[in-house]
Amino acid sequence: MKAIVFDNELKLDNNYPKPTPHKGEALIKIKLAGICNTDYEITKGYMGYNGILGHEFVGVVEDVNSENSEDKKWIGKRVVAEISWGCNDPNCEWCAKKNYRHCPNRHTIGIWKKDGCMAEYLTVPTNILFEVPENVTDKQAVFVEPLAAACEILEQLHIEPTSKVLVLGDGKLGLTTALTLNAYNLDVLLVGKHQNKLDIAKAQGVKTELLENFNTEQYDVVVEATGSASGFEMSMALTKPRGTLVLKSTVATGKELNLAPIVINEITVLGSRCGQFGPALRLLENKRIDFTPFISGIYTIDKAIDAFEANKSKENLKILIKI
Amino acid sequence: MKAIVFDNELKLDNNYPKPTPHKGEALIKIKLAGICNTDYEITKGYMGYNGILGHEFVGVVEDVNSENSEDKKWIGKRVVAEISWGCNDPNCEWCAKKNYRHCPNRHTIGIWKKDGCMAEYLTVPTNILFEVPENVTDKQAVFVEPLAAACEILEQLHIEPTSKVLVLGDGKLGLTTALTLNAYNLDVLLVGKHQNKLDIAKAQGVKTELLENFNTEQYDVVVEATGSASGFEMSMALTKPRGTLVLKSTVATGKELNLAPIVINEITVLGSRCGQFGPALRLLENKRIDFTPFISGIYTIDKAIDAFEANKSKENLKILIKI
Repeated sequence: MKAIVFDNELKLDNNYPKPTPHKGEALIKIKLAGICNTDYEITKGYMGYNGILGHEFVGVVEDVNSENSEDKKWIGKRVVAEISWGCNDPNCEWCAKKNYRHCPNRHTIGIWKKDGCMAEYLTVPTNILFEVPENVTDKQAVFVEPLAAACEILEQLHIEPTSKVLVLGDGKLGLTTALTLNAYNLDVLLVGKHQNKLDIAKAQGVKTELLENFNTEQYDVVVEATGSASGFEMSMALTKPRGTLVLKSTVATGKELNLAPIVINEITVLGSRCGQFGPALRLLENKRIDFTPFISGIYTIDKAIDAFEANKSKENLKILIKI
Repeated sequence: MKAIVFDNELKLDNNYPKPTPHKGEALIKIKLAGICNTDYEITKGYMGYNGILGHEFVGVVEDVNSENSEDKKWIGKRVVAEISWGCNDPNCEWCAKKNYRHCPNRHTIGIWKKDGCMAEYLTVPTNILFEVPENVTDKQAVFVEPLAAACEILEQLHIEPTSKVLVLGDGKLGLTTALTLNAYNLDVLLVGKHQNKLDIAKAQGVKTELLENFNTEQYDVVVEATGSASGFEMSMALTKPRGTLVLKSTVATGKELNLAPIVINEITVLGSRCGQFGPALRLLENKRIDFTPFISGIYTIDKAIDAFEANKSKENLKILIKI
């Protein structure tokens, strides 16, 4: 089958072996996949991963390796899948809490010990599948993973309806976060450097402000989504005493950081990563967020190398691959 | 009166004007004061403070400026006082929540807009006074402020009785924190570089380990009390996924920090500062912690400059000043 593989270099492999589902697994024919910054990081050596790339997809179940009739019902369904699954050992404290992504023996699609979705076929356990509601298009459904990561903030933190929330950074992470918090009726302001990106959120009802015009008052909750050390420092300064700074991006190194404001103002810094798909799918089903303006281009799998090249441009938000 | 003053330089002033209590304030004759690292930082320019130093003390109320008979009852009482008070304006969100230390119009004894306690007399509002229980000696009571700062962790964070807690750093901050969490029957391990300091905690029932012998497993809660950037990095690595890293010390700058582990492991970094006196006084009244081994020396106020010099030595834990 065709597959986009990273094996010390990024390449399109036209003869990658088609996977066979293990017991309890589904064989999924991939329809559409998204390029995430993590994929790009992997091509620079992140996680030491080699294999098929990609963890954002929508596809259709072609087969299930199971005698269980419940499992068989997945056949023919249009699905998405959470990106990690754990060992499910009864003694695993992470699996017991359903925090599969922290299970030391986890598999993560296209990132850790498991081939990714940028290929004609993917196999995953049926218990991480979610059926895509009929009224959610493929082009929306392919965003469910980053949308779930934004919803994760609300899983970890009780943001009070009267809290003032700031999202700093107008890349796709910041935009998705601001749209999500806005969809939950929170009082959110998105601040960034690019009017054209801010406008995507503004068109869907988010309050926005260019950084250069921003009146730097303090907020109860600040979401750092710039990915820069200076953005982190700015976020610390903009978080009220006893407030929460949500760290969504892996802040670039290369700068000395003074963390004293965290202690002096008793700030909580909350690291936040991937999330669960249920709430994200509900947002899509109820048309509370439209990802159409995020799509900067759709490439066929044969043009995948070009797609990755296009993904590097700061002008592009999300590049999709049609398989 | 005699007073230890920082006015661009540290000096003993034998003729500092004796303060007069404002309406609602008590005049306190100071008996014993402690030197805190913050006092030392102030002599290096911290907060841009000039005035009488010191915020750790025990004293006796000599007078109260009030017609209120309740206030008058303080006269003759042996007292300690919380270090900050707020504006108490009904519109101040910090004072409304009793977070006086974050009130933008606060006064902080010996640190911000208010003379300190290293003098013969101090005036403070009666509503921040606490009577010292009879069975608590002056030498124990003078530790109530740093002890309250350790108790603050429990005010901010619910540590479950089954959680595994690590305190990193065996200076007086780390020792006080470990002794406090141990007094609350938590499963705490103190790790540091100095056997003689660890032994102070060990003698009061705390599990201790020399850093060089430490088997670096991960903990639900890690308290960073080393004050070094490398200690912070080690604390991040020692915090379990979804665990909490309590940042008690203002981490030194001068090192590039990679905060990615906070996001990847969804760690909560909780800045923690000063605390309230009630729980700290109960710990002392119930003899749950003994600060005697912390006392490295007691100097008279006339020898205050020598006392500050002695406080610089890493061998000394707490230097007290008898007034």
